[in-house]
Amino acid sequence: MSVALENTTRADLRVELGERSYDIVIAGGLIDQPDAYNGAIRDKRVLIVTNETVAPLYAAGVNKALSATHDVDTLTLPDGEQYKTLATLDTIYDRLLENGYGRDATIVALGGGVIGDIAGFAAASYQRGIDFVQLPTTLLAQVDSSVGGKTGVNHRLGKNMIGAFHQPTRVLADVGVLDSLPAREFAAGMAEVIKYGLIRDRPFLDWLDANLAAINNREPEVLIEVIRRSCANKAEVVAADEREAGQRALLNLGHTYGHALEAELGYGEWLHGEAVAAGMCMAADTARRLGWLDERQCEHIERIISAAHLPVAPPRELECARIRSLMARDKKVAAGTLRLVLMRDIGEAVVTRDYGDALDATLKRYFAK
Amino acid sequence: MSVALENTTRADLRVELGERSYDIVIAGGLIDQPDAYNGAIRDKRVLIVTNETVAPLYAAGVNKALSATHDVDTLTLPDGEQYKTLATLDTIYDRLLENGYGRDATIVALGGGVIGDIAGFAAASYQRGIDFVQLPTTLLAQVDSSVGGKTGVNHRLGKNMIGAFHQPTRVLADVGVLDSLPAREFAAGMAEVIKYGLIRDRPFLDWLDANLAAINNREPEVLIEVIRRSCANKAEVVAADEREAGQRALLNLGHTYGHALEAELGYGEWLHGEAVAAGMCMAADTARRLGWLDERQCEHIERIISAAHLPVAPPRELECARIRSLMARDKKVAAGTLRLVLMRDIGEAVVTRDYGDALDATLKRYFAK
Repeated sequence: MSVALENTTRADLRVELGERSYDIVIAGGLIDQPDAYNGAIRDKRVLIVTNETVAPLYAAGVNKALSATHDVDTLTLPDGEQYKTLATLDTIYDRLLENGYGRDATIVALGGGVIGDIAGFAAASYQRGIDFVQLPTTLLAQVDSSVGGKTGVNHRLGKNMIGAFHQPTRVLADVGVLDSLPAREFAAGMAEVIKYGLIRDRPFLDWLDANLAAINNREPEVLIEVIRRSCANKAEVVAADEREAGQRALLNLGHTYGHALEAELGYGEWLHGEAVAAGMCMAADTARRLGWLDERQCEHIERIISAAHLPVAPPRELECARIRSLMARDKKVAAGTLRLVLMRDIGEAVVTRDYGDALDATLKRYFAK
Repeated sequence: MSVALENTTRADLRVELGERSYDIVIAGGLIDQPDAYNGAIRDKRVLIVTNETVAPLYAAGVNKALSATHDVDTLTLPDGEQYKTLATLDTIYDRLLENGYGRDATIVALGGGVIGDIAGFAAASYQRGIDFVQLPTTLLAQVDSSVGGKTGVNHRLGKNMIGAFHQPTRVLADVGVLDSLPAREFAAGMAEVIKYGLIRDRPFLDWLDANLAAINNREPEVLIEVIRRSCANKAEVVAADEREAGQRALLNLGHTYGHALEAELGYGEWLHGEAVAAGMCMAADTARRLGWLDERQCEHIERIISAAHLPVAPPRELECARIRSLMARDKKVAAGTLRLVLMRDIGEAVVTRDYGDALDATLKRYFAK
């Protein structure tokens, strides 16, 4: 990490991807400022895609900021992961075509991860690709979906099975909108933030540890740094490895465990970030059994996760065998062997197949059956 | 053009697009040969996507060629442009997911342009992009869809409105399959072939002129050269200009006129190639009125198009005003002015807004009202 940790009222981060490079701007009150959009929208015509929860809070402000210089329409989708489908996507195409939007039009995605994914995929596929600007309204979306270019929808047989890589022309991460975020969702976003520290940025983890009270109070200057440093970490990983594999797999620390928990508990029961938090503690346990982390380090990790109001363990009543089999269905199974992302040290994750019986021992520890 | 014209039993053409470069192989009996697929399919799992018309003729042969070394499934779609929809696309996703296909799977598109477009877009969007191999079974698909990476589906409000740029890992253009092509479809493919001569390759046009009898007899050696030279022309244009605009617009010679004819006659009434053929004659007429072509050159163009069993004029009973307004809806309207692709000379097309009254004069010549 070349960037120092700092408190500030605004941060600009360039994601370097050749001709698809773009800026992430992080500040309070950003999405209402006309200037924030300068240079990110190439033509007059803009479609804001948002949802029923976010629209009453922020759509008017965004619309006003853009209307001085653009011709703006707003499409409000129902809120929820269950609407991240081809059918909902088709309603975006309908609106674009009914309005006669051409290839120079821009989609502005105002909402959390679901809106970013579906509006981003609409932009990726409308007339084979138009521009889009992301206005992420959850902490998770600000620290995760802001970087990486993943867009898409779910299929009844699997999540995120249909999609494209499509980079935004700009991301405006407005820390002001986090004020309205429910506590549980804020905490869920923090799981991914802590993850960046655990996999590759020990100084950031220490800074988080020291600033958790201010973070939990959602103090803007501290949140700006949380988001900037998280996005910088993700951008470094993604720039080295735009289309997955290799280093990018490290971003899945806790996710193989977590996905299995989400699937077994039923999607929506636990938030993704909550499952990832418990999964990271389980991954720490597996690493401890391999002698990579010691007891004290595991407790340190659990303490930070707990202080962020996140679970440090899954529900005890689940079954080892079910979780093990759900983990084996994860995308990180290459050539028949489940690969795990584990920490060799705090701030240093690796992808490995050499975990022997440690995974089973971890599952036995956490589950009664 | 650096490549000489020749008669041969096999041609290989490399489409240079950096890491997305691929080969177009052109020969007879190709799709039944296991070797033809070597290096184009990275993993075991293959889904052949074809249609009800093509499947009985060629699916078994392709399946057999691949089955020795791959795990092959076949999905047969209904035949026709009216099935190029999101709903049909979803049936491809269904099959991929029901079979548990991962990111290493490959789609083999066996059919004409519709199959190439929809199967290609399925490949572009399944798990954010998997490989695909194109086995085009019409002359039009072999000379047009083989190069350029355009994939997609129609929307009720517009053709090809949803899609992606996605390059195949290989194209096998098998001239043997052209034997089963109806005469009208073969001729429609020739419209695009003649177009390459008209826009940028006068020697090719002269060669076509001299070989039209052999081409109409579908002699394999001559067809191989027809396809190779057409693809080489398109590849040169596309390599310079992968994502449209600039030079690539030249590929639309006759298309602005032709799209208006198709729309006014009702899609499917005239084949696309037939409308383009008449459109190219109309474009020649407009160029003549600007003093760019002379009477003799226009007659020469009409004679070649006619010898390829294609129409040299649209139905006379259409209305100028209707056609003019449909042309104005074309994608090539930039900043409010309709741009036309016209020939400054045979073999040298340009995009221009400076056609004054010549377009209206052309419409008056061809239409009664």
